[in-house]
Amino acid sequence: MTGLATADAFRVLQAVRERGPLVHCMTNIVVAGFTANVLLAVGASPAMVENDQESAEFAGIADALLVNLGTLSAERARAMRLAAAAADAHGHPWVLDPVAVGAMRFRTELAADLLQHRPAVVRGNSSEVLSLAGAAGAGRGVDSTVGSEAAVGVARELAGRTGGVVAVSGAVDYVTDGRNTLEVHTGHPLMTRVTGVGCALGALVAACCAVEPSRIVAATAATTVLTVAAEEAAAVSSGPGSFAVALLDALSTLDERTLEERTAAR
Amino acid sequence: MTGLATADAFRVLQAVRERGPLVHCMTNIVVAGFTANVLLAVGASPAMVENDQESAEFAGIADALLVNLGTLSAERARAMRLAAAAADAHGHPWVLDPVAVGAMRFRTELAADLLQHRPAVVRGNSSEVLSLAGAAGAGRGVDSTVGSEAAVGVARELAGRTGGVVAVSGAVDYVTDGRNTLEVHTGHPLMTRVTGVGCALGALVAACCAVEPSRIVAATAATTVLTVAAEEAAAVSSGPGSFAVALLDALSTLDERTLEERTAAR
Amino acid sequence: MTGLATADAFRVLQAVRERGPLVHCMTNIVVAGFTANVLLAVGASPAMVENDQESAEFAGIADALLVNLGTLSAERARAMRLAAAAADAHGHPWVLDPVAVGAMRFRTELAADLLQHRPAVVRGNSSEVLSLAGAAGAGRGVDSTVGSEAAVGVARELAGRTGGVVAVSGAVDYVTDGRNTLEVHTGHPLMTRVTGVGCALGALVAACCAVEPSRIVAATAATTVLTVAAEEAAAVSSGPGSFAVALLDALSTLDERTLEERTAAR
Repeated sequence: MTGLATADAFRVLQAVRERGPLVHCMTNIVVAGFTANVLLAVGASPAMVENDQESAEFAGIADALLVNLGTLSAERARAMRLAAAAADAHGHPWVLDPVAVGAMRFRTELAADLLQHRPAVVRGNSSEVLSLAGAAGAGRGVDSTVGSEAAVGVARELAGRTGGVVAVSGAVDYVTDGRNTLEVHTGHPLMTRVTGVGCALGALVAACCAVEPSRIVAATAATTVLTVAAEEAAAVSSGPGSFAVALLDALSTLDERTLEERTAAR
Repeated sequence: MTGLATADAFRVLQAVRERGPLVHCMTNIVVAGFTANVLLAVGASPAMVENDQESAEFAGIADALLVNLGTLSAERARAMRLAAAAADAHGHPWVLDPVAVGAMRFRTELAADLLQHRPAVVRGNSSEVLSLAGAAGAGRGVDSTVGSEAAVGVARELAGRTGGVVAVSGAVDYVTDGRNTLEVHTGHPLMTRVTGVGCALGALVAACCAVEPSRIVAATAATTVLTVAAEEAAAVSSGPGSFAVALLDALSTLDERTLEERTAAR
Repeated sequence: MTGLATADAFRVLQAVRERGPLVHCMTNIVVAGFTANVLLAVGASPAMVENDQESAEFAGIADALLVNLGTLSAERARAMRLAAAAADAHGHPWVLDPVAVGAMRFRTELAADLLQHRPAVVRGNSSEVLSLAGAAGAGRGVDSTVGSEAAVGVARELAGRTGGVVAVSGAVDYVTDGRNTLEVHTGHPLMTRVTGVGCALGALVAACCAVEPSRIVAATAATTVLTVAAEEAAAVSSGPGSFAVALLDALSTLDERTLEERTAAR
């Protein structure tokens, strides 16, 4: 057994639904709407605050923070540094999604700097995780050029350095705290045919970290919930458009039995 | 009878459909697409112009302006001041949506300043309206922490100060010009499980103000149209994803009979 | 026969599906998500990079670039100049979508400047193309105030000046390289009731330019693919909301026979 017990994944989902954590999202213009809808579908409360006048203040108010480097600007980069520092100072969990790190210097340097503020979870694809850790394997853009299994060793080492958890997305998802590594085998290829599914996972991880003290449990629960909902959605979709719609519906109704059955089938 | 006559709500909707007002939207990155789609669904013409080089010029061209404080930046704040002043100077109606005002100082001060440019309508939830008016009740983020009825008295006073209308969204919506207060009882809980429904209402209010001189009629018509369409959409949805899609469909086909029946049922 | 042979349109679509070109999109906050989803639906790989620290670097990495002037800012304008120059220097095709040019001075001047970097394709509605070429016919916003046929002559002249192709969108689409002009008669009115369909066409043109050396073939193939998919989507939609969803589904499954039949019916 290398995965999280279904009961634990469902317990975390239910805690999000009941407590409705306020998730401060600093994310990109492409996926902001979808990310908010994913959080709302599980009962969390998203708020996007990304300017350098307000980001630190709001990071002190919110229950968790997501920093996604998708569509950076100089101002957003400043605001992200302030917010990550404030979240760390307040003891609020924050998640780093190092989108396209490795492909461009500006964001690669920013991401390396942000690590000092001790992200609870780093979530990326294997190219991003490899680049962030200083290893080879840089992607050309937002897509990974190597399989997730290739990054597990480096992810483990990176988790040891940050003192947090590193989650590597791919056909199989790996979540490691440096000592233990959990795997998630559920999921569907349509997840890569809709923009923002990986980014929304980062937000969902943040929401779960707000209600679950174990970061490896929180990140794995979020991954399990999203990938199982994706399987449910794919079963009723006729393409990427209807899949994205069905994914939100599936997240809002996901029950323990579905989690159990779909996890057992893998 | 505390509501707007259905015939009046439908007349305003038809005027939007026939005249297709150009609505200048300065809104946030989360809901910009959905807002544009809501406006298009009722036949209005949305255009998002939010930089400080163009916002005043375009506010003089467009038929109405929406200023939504969702994802502020220093530049957007400057551009909003210029646009609101220009709209006021041209006698074009403009709508202020004070998103998350009260939770953070920067936007609270901006919103207070913008009031001097005499918004035709202020539309927010009760926490935002209370904060904008200087009363207690600040929310933590974008969600209200008190019911809409708690803000009616303050909304009435605020409307008296601005010379415009204040619309408080909630389970019951209240629209007041300081003397008269109209209520809208239609609506559905799924409206709070999709991002941007409240923000889109602000845009719809702006579109209605462009074709209807009475601001209380315009704001109440917009609220009635959106909430009735939401009930229609909820009836054919299986979750928040399909609800958002069905809401656009319902707005594009809404007829007077449906408005009549759903309003009468409340 | 004034159109592109269906076999050619399908060949270009298949090349996009097989080669998955990386398309650097500098586009607006309203349509970024939908644009990414359109590109993903045809198998291309979208990446939005729009800050002035990274845009030139990424334009050298990506296979094609889209510059859409929708929601400009001073920083984005600088980043666009850098990216267009870099794409030109690297010999990478880039597409200019001059949204609302003519209505406002700032973007009208920016668009005129960008022409020096030799866009492979300019795609706009007739008002935008007329304004860009310095002719009369400026629109008030994002919608065209004259039919596409009115801009064909000017488009031909503009193509002669840029050395590229100009595509004019409308009830009939015209694509010209200054000597030859192709027409696309497929399409559906619902395309104008959803935000971002025209903007997504610009992105699709960029994707096709990455795999097809003839720019007039690439631009016409993209237009044919999108308009035929729109007809397919409209046939199963009950309004603009479901149309947008179905359009993504249709793009992901479009086959040669459907292209053939729908093109022949016009």
